[in-house]
Amino acid sequence: MRMLINVPETVVADGLRGMAAAHPELTVDVENRVVVRRDAPVAGKVALVSGGGSGHEPLHAGFVGPGMLSAACPGEVFTSPVPDQMVRAAAAVDSGAGVLFVVKNYTGDVLNFEMAAELADEEGVQVAQVLVNDDVAVTDSLFTAGRRGTGATLFVEKIAGAAAEESAPLDRVAALARQVNEASRSFGVALTSVTTPAKGSPTFDLPPGELELGVGIHGEPGRERRPMMTSREIADFAVDAVLEDLRPRGPVIALVNGMGATPLLELYGFNAEVQRVLSERGVVVARTLVGNYVTSLDMAGCSVTLCQVDEELVRLWDAPVQTPALRWGR
Amino acid sequence: MRMLINVPETVVADGLRGMAAAHPELTVDVENRVVVRRDAPVAGKVALVSGGGSGHEPLHAGFVGPGMLSAACPGEVFTSPVPDQMVRAAAAVDSGAGVLFVVKNYTGDVLNFEMAAELADEEGVQVAQVLVNDDVAVTDSLFTAGRRGTGATLFVEKIAGAAAEESAPLDRVAALARQVNEASRSFGVALTSVTTPAKGSPTFDLPPGELELGVGIHGEPGRERRPMMTSREIADFAVDAVLEDLRPRGPVIALVNGMGATPLLELYGFNAEVQRVLSERGVVVARTLVGNYVTSLDMAGCSVTLCQVDEELVRLWDAPVQTPALRWGR
Repeated sequence: MRMLINVPETVVADGLRGMAAAHPELTVDVENRVVVRRDAPVAGKVALVSGGGSGHEPLHAGFVGPGMLSAACPGEVFTSPVPDQMVRAAAAVDSGAGVLFVVKNYTGDVLNFEMAAELADEEGVQVAQVLVNDDVAVTDSLFTAGRRGTGATLFVEKIAGAAAEESAPLDRVAALARQVNEASRSFGVALTSVTTPAKGSPTFDLPPGELELGVGIHGEPGRERRPMMTSREIADFAVDAVLEDLRPRGPVIALVNGMGATPLLELYGFNAEVQRVLSERGVVVARTLVGNYVTSLDMAGCSVTLCQVDEELVRLWDAPVQTPALRWGR
Repeated sequence: MRMLINVPETVVADGLRGMAAAHPELTVDVENRVVVRRDAPVAGKVALVSGGGSGHEPLHAGFVGPGMLSAACPGEVFTSPVPDQMVRAAAAVDSGAGVLFVVKNYTGDVLNFEMAAELADEEGVQVAQVLVNDDVAVTDSLFTAGRRGTGATLFVEKIAGAAAEESAPLDRVAALARQVNEASRSFGVALTSVTTPAKGSPTFDLPPGELELGVGIHGEPGRERRPMMTSREIADFAVDAVLEDLRPRGPVIALVNGMGATPLLELYGFNAEVQRVLSERGVVVARTLVGNYVTSLDMAGCSVTLCQVDEELVRLWDAPVQTPALRWGR
């Protein structure tokens, strides 16, 4: 194993301890695995809570802070958090204005967030949920009924988070989150497999010189394998897969995302090709974000997420955000 | 090759095109390979220019913007930029207040920046230089006479950049930059080798189950090879190597840096161990930054950089910065 870890059993707790040390602006409950923005609950503000398996960092804990998530619940690596975490997070951040759960569409996450919503409701917290299911590669997958939730999670959390920061009510924040999810589509590509600490060897077998088109963020199979392609060819394939499903009738925000082990130099080069395809297809790009945001541990590869936007969504995208992984504005 | 590229020959140009598309707040001259903050030259402000081989992204172009670099000159992968780039950058950003060249200590970079300083001087640009040489692993190395320049570059560019933004004169900005370099030490560890696009195979041979202690950011040999160590053991070794050389008599800023292919989850876990060692050694940590900032393409591994600081250096560290890779404050 070429991992920078102590033992597999403590990887998530160790990561949270290190996050606490680096980010005094967050309250990190290592034992209960809840990361909360320090000033929560914020009076009159709807709270956003998300979570999911660890191994996708900075998603979700790296998106906690003003303008985005109120709290995040990290599970074990590639494993849903448990309802107790979500209920605890909701209680910590609810100001009385209600809580939106942002849930990626994986069976475990959906069940656990559903149970947490019921429990929180019993405790008097008003909860709404949004399901993120943007990955066009496959319908149904290893851990999913329906499409998988991937890069659009960032768009949902940023844009709904901005609306919440502006004191929009829960039904408006939830409606915006659903609008963003419905306007977003993703497609991912693996150049290598991924190795989890618990397994210690690649979770799937990808021979050198081949790539997996449509891979999931846990290494789930995609649409097909092909011999190695150029950045240009990959961009053509991924962007066309997204556009075929999304068919945008207006400008888009583009996320050109690294899976974790692809150099930033290569990601920027890939972005040049993504922009070229979009231009050739007549799609106007309003904003672009390039970097490692929704990752899969040590997987090399990339994904493209497009979100069709109107002026209001662009305004909310541009609104200030202050989190460990995403920060701009004042 | 498991790379997201077209052909090795266009990797740097492709990356710059993609950076231009993602960052309209920068002026990217792809042909001449110069990245400049859009509002340069800023009247009355000393300009900071840096550069070096590509493959260490976000260093340096990702640090261009208000509060940090005025311009960056990316060379070919792991190859110094040429004097023409630096002279062009200096001319683009000089307001008349002078230019500071931030130079990592590698033979090619030193020679080329020296030549550029002479040429710029002939064109009437007042130039000062600071040499960054913080890596305690080895004295002299593959491409270096004396210590290599690595993570401290970020500290020098951030802190001197903040002073320049506050309109400090050139001699003050240069003195601060030298102070930061002298107060900083680094130590890096490789868990895998690195593969450059041009070579297409690992630049050095590191068998699975071994690590290279003291590796350079181009894969240069370090102090020794050992069988795989835990995060705790690596932190002990790296931090002690830094402290032995630095012997800080006050608080430090810590950079816990990823080499590019190590998951952020692992880096945060490593940070927990770094903080533990520092605490055990009685070193107070004023600020901590965790992430992939001074990378080595697809190398897995990490480095620790410590900078001994006083109140003024912490104030300049905290000052606003708005670059692609580092942003905080207003």
